[in-house]
Amino acid sequence: MLMQTHEARLKALREELKRRGLAGFIIPISDEHMSEYVGDYAQRLAWLTGFGGSAGFAAVTLTHAAIFVDGRYTVQVREQVDGSLFEYRSIPGDRLGDWLAEVCEKGAKIAYDPWLHTWSWVEALEKIVEPAGIAMVPADSNPIDAVWADQPAPSDAVAIVHAEDLAGRSSADKRAAVADWLTDQGLDAVVIPALDSIAWLLNIRGTDVAHTPVALSYVIAHSDGRAELFIAPEKVTPELTQHLGNAVTIRARDEFAPALAGELKGKKVSVDPDFGVVGIAQALREGGAKFTFKQDPTILAKAIKNSAEVQGHRDAQARDGAAVSRFLRWLEVTAPAGGIDELAAAAKLEGFRREHGDLRDTSFDTISAASGHAALPHYKVDEDSNIPIPPGSIYLVDSGGQYPAGTTDITRTVWINSPDSAQPTAEMKDRFTRVLKGHIQIDRAVFPQGTCGGQIDVLARQYLWEGGVDYAHGTGHGVGSFLGVHEGPQRIAKPMGGQAGTAQELFAGMILSNEPGYYKPGEFGIRIENLVLTVEREIEGAEGRYLGFDCLTFVPIDRTLIDKSLLTPSEIDWLDTYHATVREIVAPQLEGDDLAWLEAQTAPL
Amino acid sequence: MLMQTHEARLKALREELKRRGLAGFIIPISDEHMSEYVGDYAQRLAWLTGFGGSAGFAAVTLTHAAIFVDGRYTVQVREQVDGSLFEYRSIPGDRLGDWLAEVCEKGAKIAYDPWLHTWSWVEALEKIVEPAGIAMVPADSNPIDAVWADQPAPSDAVAIVHAEDLAGRSSADKRAAVADWLTDQGLDAVVIPALDSIAWLLNIRGTDVAHTPVALSYVIAHSDGRAELFIAPEKVTPELTQHLGNAVTIRARDEFAPALAGELKGKKVSVDPDFGVVGIAQALREGGAKFTFKQDPTILAKAIKNSAEVQGHRDAQARDGAAVSRFLRWLEVTAPAGGIDELAAAAKLEGFRREHGDLRDTSFDTISAASGHAALPHYKVDEDSNIPIPPGSIYLVDSGGQYPAGTTDITRTVWINSPDSAQPTAEMKDRFTRVLKGHIQIDRAVFPQGTCGGQIDVLARQYLWEGGVDYAHGTGHGVGSFLGVHEGPQRIAKPMGGQAGTAQELFAGMILSNEPGYYKPGEFGIRIENLVLTVEREIEGAEGRYLGFDCLTFVPIDRTLIDKSLLTPSEIDWLDTYHATVREIVAPQLEGDDLAWLEAQTAPL
Repeated sequence: MLMQTHEARLKALREELKRRGLAGFIIPISDEHMSEYVGDYAQRLAWLTGFGGSAGFAAVTLTHAAIFVDGRYTVQVREQVDGSLFEYRSIPGDRLGDWLAEVCEKGAKIAYDPWLHTWSWVEALEKIVEPAGIAMVPADSNPIDAVWADQPAPSDAVAIVHAEDLAGRSSADKRAAVADWLTDQGLDAVVIPALDSIAWLLNIRGTDVAHTPVALSYVIAHSDGRAELFIAPEKVTPELTQHLGNAVTIRARDEFAPALAGELKGKKVSVDPDFGVVGIAQALREGGAKFTFKQDPTILAKAIKNSAEVQGHRDAQARDGAAVSRFLRWLEVTAPAGGIDELAAAAKLEGFRREHGDLRDTSFDTISAASGHAALPHYKVDEDSNIPIPPGSIYLVDSGGQYPAGTTDITRTVWINSPDSAQPTAEMKDRFTRVLKGHIQIDRAVFPQGTCGGQIDVLARQYLWEGGVDYAHGTGHGVGSFLGVHEGPQRIAKPMGGQAGTAQELFAGMILSNEPGYYKPGEFGIRIENLVLTVEREIEGAEGRYLGFDCLTFVPIDRTLIDKSLLTPSEIDWLDTYHATVREIVAPQLEGDDLAWLEAQTAPL
Repeated sequence: MLMQTHEARLKALREELKRRGLAGFIIPISDEHMSEYVGDYAQRLAWLTGFGGSAGFAAVTLTHAAIFVDGRYTVQVREQVDGSLFEYRSIPGDRLGDWLAEVCEKGAKIAYDPWLHTWSWVEALEKIVEPAGIAMVPADSNPIDAVWADQPAPSDAVAIVHAEDLAGRSSADKRAAVADWLTDQGLDAVVIPALDSIAWLLNIRGTDVAHTPVALSYVIAHSDGRAELFIAPEKVTPELTQHLGNAVTIRARDEFAPALAGELKGKKVSVDPDFGVVGIAQALREGGAKFTFKQDPTILAKAIKNSAEVQGHRDAQARDGAAVSRFLRWLEVTAPAGGIDELAAAAKLEGFRREHGDLRDTSFDTISAASGHAALPHYKVDEDSNIPIPPGSIYLVDSGGQYPAGTTDITRTVWINSPDSAQPTAEMKDRFTRVLKGHIQIDRAVFPQGTCGGQIDVLARQYLWEGGVDYAHGTGHGVGSFLGVHEGPQRIAKPMGGQAGTAQELFAGMILSNEPGYYKPGEFGIRIENLVLTVEREIEGAEGRYLGFDCLTFVPIDRTLIDKSLLTPSEIDWLDTYHATVREIVAPQLEGDDLAWLEAQTAPL
């Protein structure tokens, strides 16, 4: 089959736009559920432009085209996308609205797919383009789909029942809680488009999306505890039907929009503003429902893990810690000779995880980053970027697994020995140790109930700041239970700058990553990441309720990179205690050389 | 003269309301400038109810009356206000709007003085009462003033020129900067009602308000650098006229409202939403000005001190430090015998400050708090509350002076020895040391440009949190230069909970208090407060611009209350270095026993 060029694809799209009387179209990386990772069928931006990054969008008019990406992808977009077809624009500095106002004539109709954008996105854009006489119009169907001949179909994989002993709570119980919430809010129903919310609510999982074990579907939950699940019929097994029971009506996925428009007249219905796309709001409005935007009621409940989920995380992490430890030992032995490249290392790590049998997927694309690549916090290794890991350098690996018991996410930064015994520079050790000190401060933070992640972020940064450096990402994100590796609503990050979740109060049961870092462009990068569980802390004489974190992730931290003189006695004690726990949890799973390695790595500093 | 009872005053007010066809009236503690401290003429709440606190308000209808105060005044309001006349209500829990909706009939007109409330206050209230059919109406004149026979006139003290060598910048230069801002914003003029903004802009001061050296006036500043100063003629001296020069037109204060309504037609005019009262907005609207709410352009400029102001603060603090040190030595010698009460101590402290001759006022009512009183962060000592300072107890003194060179604010907490050599409890020392550790962490914090006060607040709280305790106030507020002791826009505090200023970026030149504390109700209270100056920090290898704090306040910290075992070597080093600097700055101003005391207090720990 002849490979169609991007030039031909762009031309075909423009012809389709002309046919429809449209002046332009916006192409995001997005699906109908506002998912973090989207299925192949929704990779319209990649198909049109060749761009392989995880965030960005393009805008195409009859005469102009541009691709908008953030600072992570400045280099990559120039390698992958033909600059003679698409101008490069950099977000957030360059705004789509300004670009449209610049290249479009007054009266232009610019279309968007109403199933791929939220209401607030459209409103913000309209505010900018309307003064320039440009109208944003929802497309009846996606113009890319009309010209993408070999567009993959959405996954037809079956939905899977998530065992109640792992979920810790029945779907009926969860639906009853949603029904109580609806009653409290004076609502009749809530539309739930977020795939992980649906998975949590109904105790189901799937394999439709890479890295996040969800099934493509929609839910409408009612104030009487009933729910309707809209899902492609081929995904429904007898087991699923039996699991869902009589209170959950299974309907075809393509009945969803007609149901919104035809069955909720006069009902009070809410939808989450961050996950409910324009198409949902439009259909509800057309159908005469009284709809309001409210946060999806499953989000906070899903974030607060119950004891079965916590136990599941501990089990998954123990297993995962053994796999990562074996990998690090393999790397330590093998890499100094040279010849191990980033892809091979990532594959080896996945292999160790798979050996345990319970791995269902990686929880995101492994960041396997040698030397200068480690300075890119979101580096994605592929055939083009892949380089050998140089002996005598820093290597960073950020990876995670999806196990039915829980989702993992861990970063370790290690020194790769060399035949000539090259040692890390003083600067590397200084930075690594400051990152470690910040990591320790988050790990042992104690804070009153009512504290949000935006308040404690500085604990992780303070030692780097003392050294005049910082890192340009958040300190911690929520993590799901065999669901999204990035899960809201909580977040530890600077409270300004638009990172959602920094004002969310932390509750016992929430899981967060703890991942300060440091990045020296072109030279090296450092990140130390464990997952932590928010727990209640008993303190003698405490006035009120206090919380802290229990660490969930147990893998040695590389002492070669530590400058011990920068650590206080209590920080050394933290590290020794941490390593003793690593040994306790991981040693029973190892043997022979792996075990010996672990024992050496976890000896007191 | 017969003292009119509060019952008679309430009755007179109700008759006045009836005469005007009004169903009720709101009485705040407020003036036309939204000042923190208000003149005697504006103490309408105290006149009507007898309440002497600094915050609160009353609402009076023809049949009901209530006084609303916050948690600081729960006890005091019951002592000072007759509960048979005024129901007690507690803010923020009890809302004025709900109370009005409860006690008023549909169609009731509740008046407010439009010169004593901001637009946003009225809007928020209307949102609550309008559904209950209640209308908020601006009163033509204040009904209290109509019945308050012996209401004091506003102060007629003259306005004073603030020397340019202290201000560090001419008024013409400041007005040119405001003019540039107006041009940038596309505005013709800005109305400035905030008294400290006017004082800063025109380099004038006054004595019209307790604790804050400002002159009652208004300014309209224009985009050509001209300004109009509206001020009572008796306040204007030839010296003032000469200082202001030709570009500042001096007009009578009562021409202000007519000028807003009559002279700005078609002009684009801004006013600060937090300081511009409804009366100003109404007059502008009536007069056909195009007005918008924007932050007063002098606020940020005023907060960033120039080098002359910084030097002035250092001079004032050195002088103030000597006075406070002499007071603490006097207290240490005198108090153990008993018989010194809180008022006497406050008077003695003011006496030491006055001895230096340059003191113009205290910068706020001295908090002179013995034992259990120290647990009230905002305790105000008066004849009724005054108690002797018990030997063998904790004493807290929070005070400050207004010197032409700068404004001071310092808190010290000391152990009062007793004849039986009673020692502080382990709990007291534990809490004091945790407060000190937090104070040290703020003092030596380093942070990148772009950081706001809400981010670093946790540094002050972390050790208290580890002990399961906290304090229910902010960590730091801005401080003026011979202006308000509480000055915006910056603040170090928890980023949630509505404390304004926590999202304000900190800039070099900003002065902040550093005042963590701990309060055990009924037993003792601790606060350690110094002022700090935000400065640039040179760090080798720094990536970007980093800031930190230079301490401005130098008075010994009481070592009797320190548990040395809780301090790290670097914290002990901080304390020793701090005390060495105290000695260096204060010793040259002391002699004899005072000097010997200082040397002992500032010896290494």
